[in-house]
Amino acid sequence: MVQKAYRAQIFHLLDDPYLAGDAYQYFKDGLLIVEDGHVKTVGPYRKLAGTLRPNTKIQHYKNHLIMPGFIDTHIHFPQVDIIGSYGRQLMDWLQDYTFPAEAAFKDPKVCANTARFFVKELLRNGTTSALVFGTVHEASADAMFMEAQKKNMRLIAGKVLMDRGAPKNLLDGKDMGRAATTRLIKKWHGKDRLGYAITPRFAPTSTSEQLAMAGTLKAQNPSVHVHTHMCENKNEIKTVSELFPDASDYLDVYEKHGLVGDKTVLAHGVHLSASMCKRISASGAGMSLCPTSNMFIGSGLFKLAQLRRHKVRHALGTDIGGGTSFSLLTTMSAAYSVCQLRDLSLSSMDAFYMATLGGAKLLGMDKYVGNFEPGKEADFIALDLKATPLVARRLKGITRIKALMFAIMILGDDRMISETFVMGKSVYKK
Amino acid sequence: MVQKAYRAQIFHLLDDPYLAGDAYQYFKDGLLIVEDGHVKTVGPYRKLAGTLRPNTKIQHYKNHLIMPGFIDTHIHFPQVDIIGSYGRQLMDWLQDYTFPAEAAFKDPKVCANTARFFVKELLRNGTTSALVFGTVHEASADAMFMEAQKKNMRLIAGKVLMDRGAPKNLLDGKDMGRAATTRLIKKWHGKDRLGYAITPRFAPTSTSEQLAMAGTLKAQNPSVHVHTHMCENKNEIKTVSELFPDASDYLDVYEKHGLVGDKTVLAHGVHLSASMCKRISASGAGMSLCPTSNMFIGSGLFKLAQLRRHKVRHALGTDIGGGTSFSLLTTMSAAYSVCQLRDLSLSSMDAFYMATLGGAKLLGMDKYVGNFEPGKEADFIALDLKATPLVARRLKGITRIKALMFAIMILGDDRMISETFVMGKSVYKK
Repeated sequence: MVQKAYRAQIFHLLDDPYLAGDAYQYFKDGLLIVEDGHVKTVGPYRKLAGTLRPNTKIQHYKNHLIMPGFIDTHIHFPQVDIIGSYGRQLMDWLQDYTFPAEAAFKDPKVCANTARFFVKELLRNGTTSALVFGTVHEASADAMFMEAQKKNMRLIAGKVLMDRGAPKNLLDGKDMGRAATTRLIKKWHGKDRLGYAITPRFAPTSTSEQLAMAGTLKAQNPSVHVHTHMCENKNEIKTVSELFPDASDYLDVYEKHGLVGDKTVLAHGVHLSASMCKRISASGAGMSLCPTSNMFIGSGLFKLAQLRRHKVRHALGTDIGGGTSFSLLTTMSAAYSVCQLRDLSLSSMDAFYMATLGGAKLLGMDKYVGNFEPGKEADFIALDLKATPLVARRLKGITRIKALMFAIMILGDDRMISETFVMGKSVYKK
Repeated sequence: MVQKAYRAQIFHLLDDPYLAGDAYQYFKDGLLIVEDGHVKTVGPYRKLAGTLRPNTKIQHYKNHLIMPGFIDTHIHFPQVDIIGSYGRQLMDWLQDYTFPAEAAFKDPKVCANTARFFVKELLRNGTTSALVFGTVHEASADAMFMEAQKKNMRLIAGKVLMDRGAPKNLLDGKDMGRAATTRLIKKWHGKDRLGYAITPRFAPTSTSEQLAMAGTLKAQNPSVHVHTHMCENKNEIKTVSELFPDASDYLDVYEKHGLVGDKTVLAHGVHLSASMCKRISASGAGMSLCPTSNMFIGSGLFKLAQLRRHKVRHALGTDIGGGTSFSLLTTMSAAYSVCQLRDLSLSSMDAFYMATLGGAKLLGMDKYVGNFEPGKEADFIALDLKATPLVARRLKGITRIKALMFAIMILGDDRMISETFVMGKSVYKK
C-alpha cells in the first residue's frame, strides 16, 4: 500500500451550499492523505500528521490551496482549433466553423493529435473529469477514450450522431450511427474510469428516426449517459419547432424519443420555459451551463433563479470551442457576470460547487469524485496563490474563505494551477 | 541621435476602421525604426533594413507581433485592492468596498505604494497611457503623477472631487477641492508627458456648488480634461434625477455646470437616451466603455450601435477595480461579448482601434501616440504569439490578419505582453 500526504490550505465542498448552507470544509493548514490513489482522510495538519505511516513523506505546498479537480460537464474536443472564431451566432457558427473543423476528423491522426493536446489542456487547467463531444467519426471517440485512459481519467465521451442538417461527409450513414455507437459502448463503457454518452448533437441534426434509434440504444444500455444540446439560441429553438411540428416544445422532442432521464445532460438551456424546467427536474436530467460560450456566441444569459426555483440540477461547462477558455475558474467568473446581469449574486461556494461536486453529481460520478470524502478517488489540484503579481497582492489581504475563493475565481486562470493529480498521481506540473 | 530598430510582425491602425474601412497596416516581416524615442518609420523589413545607420542593431522578435501600446481610458488606481469583491451593484459597491478602500489613501505611503504597483501592472499588461482616477486626497494624485513620471508615461490623472454622499473623511473640505485641484494642475499639467483631469466622481457625490467650481476651474484651464462617470447603473440614474430635480437628464447636470466639452471623458454610458447621445456627440465629449466592469457589477450591456448611430466618440476602459482585468485584450474580448449579446459583431479592427488610436483620440493625445505614424512617440508592445500552449496552437493555423488579431483578443491576456516600451525605452520585460 502506498501512502502519500499533501500539506497546504485545503478546501472542498460536502454538499450543495445553496440548499445545505455552509456545506464546505476549509483547513488553513490542512493535510490530505491518499492511499493507493484514494482519499484516506483530510483535516488539520496538526491533528493528522501523527497518524501517518513512518515512511510517508509530506509534500508541503506553501502558498497553495489544494482542492478537488474541476469537472467540465460540456466540452467539444474537436473544436480546439476554432476557439475564438469571429462573428457568428449558433446556427451560422456550426456551418461556418464547426462543421469544416470537424470534417478533418475523418483522419485518425487528427483525432489522436487533437485528443492528446486536448487532454493536456484539461489537466493544465485543473480539469480532471469531463463530459466530451467527439465528431461523427467513430475514431474521434476512440482517440478521446485512449488519451483519457492513458492518464487514467474519469471521463465520459461519445461520438456525435447526426443524419441531417450538416455536410454529407459529417452524416451518419444508413444505420444512423447505431453500429459505431454500439461498438464504442462495448469497447469503452465501464472500462477503467471511462463512460460512454450517447451523443446526438441536437434535434436539428438528427431525424426522428435517428433519435428513436438513440433512445433504443439508451434503453438497451441503461448505465450510459445521454449528452446533447437544448435551447441555446432562439433561432435554434425556432428551427426545432419547424422540424418537429408535432412536438409541444424542444424538450418534448427528446422526451418522445426516450432520451430524457437521470443520466441525461442537456447543454445550455439559456431559454427554458417553466414547463420544461418542471419536466427536466422531474426526470432527473440536468443542465450544463456554459457562460463563456453563451456570451461569446451571443446566445443569451442563463437564468439561474429559474433553475433553482424548479430544482433543476445544473453544473458548469466550458463548451470549447464556442466557449473561450478551458478554465473552470474563468467559467465561474463568467457565470458570476451572467448572474449579476440578472440581478443575482452567485456566491463563491455555489460556483465552486458547480465546478466540482455539483459537476460530479450531474455526471453521476459523485460516488467517486467531486470532493475529499474518505474512499473517493484522489483527483485534485494545487492552486498557486501567488500565480500573478495581481493575484498575490489581492489574495494576501483576504482572511475569510468565501472572499478568498471568490477572488480566486474572479482573478484566477490556468496559471493558478500549479499541479494536477489523477488518482493520486501527478499528471501536470507547471 | 540614438537609432533603434525592431523586427517582427507589425500591426497598427491609421484611422477608425468602422468609418474609414480597412484603415490598418500589417507587415508580416516588418521593421519599426525609432529615433530618440520617436517613430522614424515603419514598413517591410526588406525595404527598410537598408536605410538604417551603420551602427544600428536590429532587435529581432521572432513569433512576436509589435503594435502600439494600449490606452486605458478609465481606471481607478486606488481600487487595485478591491478587484474581485463580491456581490454588489454600483451604489452598494461604492459604499461597501470603494469608500473604505479609498479612505486608506489619506496615508501618502499607501498612495505611493499603490501607485507604484499600479504603474507596474499597467506596463505588465501593455498599457502605456491611461486616464486615471485618484481618491479625494491630493497626495493620491501626486503619487500617481510621480510614478508615471518615473516611467515617462503619457498619462492623465486627477484627484477626485466629492463633497457629499460619501463618508466624511472622503469629502472635500470647505474650499471644496478647488485649492488642491489648482495646485495639482499647476504642478503636473503639461509637465513631461503628464496631463490633469478635473475629476468629480459623479453627480451623486458632488453638490451643484462643487460642480460649478469644477466648471469654473475647467474654464480657467481650458487644456485640462474633465473625467467623470455617467449612466452606468439604473439606481445611479434615479439618484441623480432625485438630487437634481431641475435637470432634464443626467447629462444636463454636467452640461449646466460647464463640464461637457471636447476634453470630457464620461465613463460607462450603459443607459443613454438618444437625446444624450446627440448632445454628447455635438459637444465633442466621448464615452469610455468598460465591459468587464459593466458585467461584473451587473450594470448592463452598452449599446455600441446607438453610439455609432449618433457618432459619439468612444474607446475602452478597464475600470479597475469594478473591472476585473488590467488587460485591454481581456477588455476587448468582453466588449465583443457585450456586442454579441446585442446581436452586433465587433470586428477585431474596431476593437484594436478602440484600445489604441481610438483611445488616444478620446484622450486628445493622438497627435503623440496611438499608432506608428512618423514623428509619434514610440510607445509600443511586443506580443508573444506563443504565450500559452493554446495560443500557440490556435494562432499557428491563421493566415489572415483580421482573424489573427481576433484570436489574439479573445485568447490573449497579460501573458502575451513580452515587452513594453515607452518612448523607445523598454520598461517591462516578461
